[in-house]
Amino acid sequence: MSSPLSRLTCLRDYEVQARQRLPAGTWAYLNAGGADGLTHIWNEQAFKKIALWPRVLNNVGGGSTSLDLFGVRHKHPIFIAPMAYHGLAHAEAEHATAAAAAAMKAAFVVSTQASVPIEALSHRSAEGHLWFQLYLQDDRYVSLDLIQRAERAGFKAIVITVDAPIQGSRNEDQRQAFQLPTAVQPVNLAPYACRQINTTLPAGASLFQHPLIAQMPTWEAVAWLIRQTRLPVLLKGILNPLDVAPALDTGASGIVVSNHGGRVLDTLPAMLDCLPGIVAEVRARVPVLADGGIRRGSDVFKALALGADAVLIGRPILHGLAVAGSTGVAHVLNLLLGELEATMVLTGCKTLSHINTSRLRWLDSTTRHELS
Amino acid sequence: MSSPLSRLTCLRDYEVQARQRLPAGTWAYLNAGGADGLTHIWNEQAFKKIALWPRVLNNVGGGSTSLDLFGVRHKHPIFIAPMAYHGLAHAEAEHATAAAAAAMKAAFVVSTQASVPIEALSHRSAEGHLWFQLYLQDDRYVSLDLIQRAERAGFKAIVITVDAPIQGSRNEDQRQAFQLPTAVQPVNLAPYACRQINTTLPAGASLFQHPLIAQMPTWEAVAWLIRQTRLPVLLKGILNPLDVAPALDTGASGIVVSNHGGRVLDTLPAMLDCLPGIVAEVRARVPVLADGGIRRGSDVFKALALGADAVLIGRPILHGLAVAGSTGVAHVLNLLLGELEATMVLTGCKTLSHINTSRLRWLDSTTRHELS
Amino acid sequence: MSSPLSRLTCLRDYEVQARQRLPAGTWAYLNAGGADGLTHIWNEQAFKKIALWPRVLNNVGGGSTSLDLFGVRHKHPIFIAPMAYHGLAHAEAEHATAAAAAAMKAAFVVSTQASVPIEALSHRSAEGHLWFQLYLQDDRYVSLDLIQRAERAGFKAIVITVDAPIQGSRNEDQRQAFQLPTAVQPVNLAPYACRQINTTLPAGASLFQHPLIAQMPTWEAVAWLIRQTRLPVLLKGILNPLDVAPALDTGASGIVVSNHGGRVLDTLPAMLDCLPGIVAEVRARVPVLADGGIRRGSDVFKALALGADAVLIGRPILHGLAVAGSTGVAHVLNLLLGELEATMVLTGCKTLSHINTSRLRWLDSTTRHELS
Amino acid sequence: MSSPLSRLTCLRDYEVQARQRLPAGTWAYLNAGGADGLTHIWNEQAFKKIALWPRVLNNVGGGSTSLDLFGVRHKHPIFIAPMAYHGLAHAEAEHATAAAAAAMKAAFVVSTQASVPIEALSHRSAEGHLWFQLYLQDDRYVSLDLIQRAERAGFKAIVITVDAPIQGSRNEDQRQAFQLPTAVQPVNLAPYACRQINTTLPAGASLFQHPLIAQMPTWEAVAWLIRQTRLPVLLKGILNPLDVAPALDTGASGIVVSNHGGRVLDTLPAMLDCLPGIVAEVRARVPVLADGGIRRGSDVFKALALGADAVLIGRPILHGLAVAGSTGVAHVLNLLLGELEATMVLTGCKTLSHINTSRLRWLDSTTRHELS
Repeated sequence: MSSPLSRLTCLRDYEVQARQRLPAGTWAYLNAGGADGLTHIWNEQAFKKIALWPRVLNNVGGGSTSLDLFGVRHKHPIFIAPMAYHGLAHAEAEHATAAAAAAMKAAFVVSTQASVPIEALSHRSAEGHLWFQLYLQDDRYVSLDLIQRAERAGFKAIVITVDAPIQGSRNEDQRQAFQLPTAVQPVNLAPYACRQINTTLPAGASLFQHPLIAQMPTWEAVAWLIRQTRLPVLLKGILNPLDVAPALDTGASGIVVSNHGGRVLDTLPAMLDCLPGIVAEVRARVPVLADGGIRRGSDVFKALALGADAVLIGRPILHGLAVAGSTGVAHVLNLLLGELEATMVLTGCKTLSHINTSRLRWLDSTTRHELS
Repeated sequence: MSSPLSRLTCLRDYEVQARQRLPAGTWAYLNAGGADGLTHIWNEQAFKKIALWPRVLNNVGGGSTSLDLFGVRHKHPIFIAPMAYHGLAHAEAEHATAAAAAAMKAAFVVSTQASVPIEALSHRSAEGHLWFQLYLQDDRYVSLDLIQRAERAGFKAIVITVDAPIQGSRNEDQRQAFQLPTAVQPVNLAPYACRQINTTLPAGASLFQHPLIAQMPTWEAVAWLIRQTRLPVLLKGILNPLDVAPALDTGASGIVVSNHGGRVLDTLPAMLDCLPGIVAEVRARVPVLADGGIRRGSDVFKALALGADAVLIGRPILHGLAVAGSTGVAHVLNLLLGELEATMVLTGCKTLSHINTSRLRWLDSTTRHELS
Repeated sequence: MSSPLSRLTCLRDYEVQARQRLPAGTWAYLNAGGADGLTHIWNEQAFKKIALWPRVLNNVGGGSTSLDLFGVRHKHPIFIAPMAYHGLAHAEAEHATAAAAAAMKAAFVVSTQASVPIEALSHRSAEGHLWFQLYLQDDRYVSLDLIQRAERAGFKAIVITVDAPIQGSRNEDQRQAFQLPTAVQPVNLAPYACRQINTTLPAGASLFQHPLIAQMPTWEAVAWLIRQTRLPVLLKGILNPLDVAPALDTGASGIVVSNHGGRVLDTLPAMLDCLPGIVAEVRARVPVLADGGIRRGSDVFKALALGADAVLIGRPILHGLAVAGSTGVAHVLNLLLGELEATMVLTGCKTLSHINTSRLRWLDSTTRHELS
Repeated sequence: MSSPLSRLTCLRDYEVQARQRLPAGTWAYLNAGGADGLTHIWNEQAFKKIALWPRVLNNVGGGSTSLDLFGVRHKHPIFIAPMAYHGLAHAEAEHATAAAAAAMKAAFVVSTQASVPIEALSHRSAEGHLWFQLYLQDDRYVSLDLIQRAERAGFKAIVITVDAPIQGSRNEDQRQAFQLPTAVQPVNLAPYACRQINTTLPAGASLFQHPLIAQMPTWEAVAWLIRQTRLPVLLKGILNPLDVAPALDTGASGIVVSNHGGRVLDTLPAMLDCLPGIVAEVRARVPVLADGGIRRGSDVFKALALGADAVLIGRPILHGLAVAGSTGVAHVLNLLLGELEATMVLTGCKTLSHINTSRLRWLDSTTRHELS
């Protein structure tokens, strides 16, 4: 690790640095929450409402953070969330992220909106676990073609985003009049000449009359897609336990609890507050991943204690990428992993299976908010 | 929409701009809450205590925001609240507001204290729905004459304000020593040479001895007025469910839950916190409208989910008017409507009738307040 | 009222002005709470946790704020709390306060530590109601002599302070190294050459060994004093309902719920939070007065609704005095009274007896704190 | 007491002064909490959630703050917590602290990481009560040797820290790149050439594979050590009541409830919030000491009321030391003791045995947080 990075001691330090390095418009696009940004804030704060509840003097020597998922052994449960256009943060774009993921043996969920062709990523990251995130297209055969390309390129799982049929109120981007630079484009969608996936609201017209809404994919479309692939498919963006049953009926192999980082619909609840409800409804039939607001290894620990099998890390990955490219991403992952291990040692948890709600203590409402 | 307005991405942006454009005294008169402004703040914050609770992958194509009210079809439930003296915000005054309301097909409740003659508004806004707001006069025949003028001018409903027999503590206006400019006056009251409707507290004398208090209108006066008109009459300013029964006994056709935007009596509860109690007591016998603190389409959604049939928008309309006249008002309404439609799509609600409490989730007390 | 005062619209405005006019040390002595000042803050905030719960369209014409107390008719329930050394705020000292009290027909509780002889006050204020506050002296005959002087001087009631046998942590005064100026002294105690009533903690020695603690007055001493006077005696500084029974056993004619304005022992609870417990225990056998944190007429209303018969106003009186002498004090009282009347009109309360808990609504914990 | 110190009126004043005097890196090492510092903040805030509940007019003359512990009479329950390297705060290091402890008759727990040889302290502090804090070493015979040295040097009790087998996320130190100056070193560990006790996380390697973790001491090691000494042994760092039974099974003579001042694992709960659970589980079989967040005499009072037998004061001791050496430490202790006595007088508690939960009142969640 190069010397200047040693002063970057945690993910928050990377956020501060990244903000200074990126143009305001790019920062807004990458980092801002939707509308007033309340869900974005709530995601992080939710972890601060729950305290750790330790046990002392237990020997945890020889412990491990490893887990099995879809028949694959992972060194740790810290994965990289799908995010559009890593090229906005660094010229090496998803290539750099994939290299860091491989170095840290972290699964990496590559976005439909990646700034490099997904086919270019597979070889560079042979050691890592590349997953592919799919934005559902109004033409289901376009969706299928994307999945089949990912299969051919060696991706190990598909993550279908179900919570963003339209783009939300990106007020901060709009104030900055952010536009994608010409060097950063949705190259993976270029072959299809498809309509824009996420659309802003048409002024003066009703959204309900928009053709894309009329052809909005539903549970049936997802079930059809799942039947066409041999890869495990996870559905990302489920918060309401009532959506668990239809999700499992589609044949999905996993669920990602997520509010899209608070980017799409503001005042959705914090991810962590929704996690226990989903876990209870899933009843261990498929893995549950947690996505939103994780900034500390103790946050990873808390999500696992509430029933998540693994977690996805979003914005901090791009912060690391913006600050120091592949090295920055690896450092961010290593910081989180180190903090997770320290939390396990200090609470007396030798393996992930020891991490459960007995290791948490809910703060009373007063103490909780004295965190600002 | 003109280019500079594209950077005004939400109602809050308009508020910031309007504040910069208006003189401090005018701003205080138009925008400040009464006394310490707590109710004004609470009105907005109440919406941030409640999260949206989505369902995914439901097709909402062909949906609609329309509703029927008093036998009239409205394109959407976003109405313009009665507010005094639009002339303070823009030279075209209520003419501009009415034009925007017509363009956006929004009902517009014109104030007794409008800065233009109500008779001048009816023709310009044939497409819109103009309602008339009445401040009860100590002489009931003056009140009746105002109602009859509104009837003749083609207004579609009457909204009687019942929560402001006296003016409250307008401390911020007083600090600014705000006075109505000579060009902006209560022209609709000029014919009556009536006493000032809202009176400030006489120094050193008892308010209880003031003649206007002695002749303070009561339920009986309201019932008498309602019997004199064929128009539907709504009572505006009811918070306590115990006032629902006497309100319906007067023959009122609707109730507007409102604390007068926090302008009259400070530390009244937030409108939204009172809405469910009123809805429960009304038991669907008449429509209930919600007035206070709505700044986002998701706020409209939440008020509807808690039982409101439609909502009134106050200060943001004047902000739009101050910034860009009629265009600004139309833009404010369009922003709200677009956000409402997006919220419906993203929570899986095809029509207003799908919006109910199953789509809300109360935040725990800690999360809620982390919204500063 | 002179013109500049018209911009002073509420008690908070007076506080801001007074702070600018007084030396920092004087301000600290007059205004600061003890230690970290938490109780001082809590006293004011407690009123903001409770909302008003209005009724509309009730005629309150001919209403009144008057009340009877100890056989005397008072025009309103807003009294002046005992405070030391009004001479620190204004050269006319308690003379000015008494004149304002007489003009506003407000009862005025003069402190043992008044900066003018209590005998000099009685004649100037024939119209007002002067009460005398007693700090218990370690020699009970000194206490008795003070009471008898007050009797002879025509004071109408005695208020014995029971919550300050020692001075608390006056950290802010100490930081300022505040000393009483030679022109301002406890003249009423001069005849007795008594030991200092309130003593700061001796460094390095145990407070428990201090002679004044050994002779600390107790319930028996209070009972003895009460038997020596024909005046009604109130005990001031009771928070714990368990102290009500012994207080009434002494023969006290009234109780003042107070935490000494948060000046003596920090982290005592807010006065308002203690009031209902005391009211419940007293069971209407004697009047209960409320002292602490009242800054608005709506605060007066809330204290009365929770069972107080009258309220004491402290620091704001000195703010008024510092800003504009007797006129300032009268204005402060008039502002509060006007706000109380407006609150009564707007909640539909014609007399003080209509003010009860049905006119209050507890805010949920989230809304409450969004008041900053 | 020298004149400038008279303006230092409470522990907070010392904190402000100390921060100005110490280099930023030293300040970070001595004062910062781990990671985001939430537990550090919570520790202090927890005391502000609980109000004092007084009784009045009780004579407390001749009272006392004394207590018996392990057969020794202590003048008061305010002890000095173990902290590393007093030499960072003042050149006289632990010598100065011990002198102040002796002068104030306060027990002083000397750290394994003291910056002076423990053997050098025993004679200077004959009047005080010196206890020795042990960091468990991976070689149990090193631990035993340290205990035996403390025995020979006349220390009266052993405090074994059980909550810090590894160092936590010292992000603030890391940002400052703090290093121990050569003049300040762990001299008491020099004889053993032992491995570093607290290790930071190895980058890129698993903490679980670290030799020190493999040899991490457990309950059995503690029990063995306790059997080797005739001194009373307390276990420090227990928060979870489930750890009480194994702690007592080791033969421990006391328990110190502590989260290590929030320095090791962030988002552990506030000490005070854990205290009642430990007290309930211990059932008075051994003394319970409370360590964390105490900054006022009223905080000492609250910890005792919740069941602690005595309290440990940490950072404020170093603040006093940094500001004025031995005099500063004595002043800090005297301020706390004076505030404790004043709190006892003002709540009517004559001895420590009168301090119990009847003297506390939990604030409702709103009031509590209005303290910032």
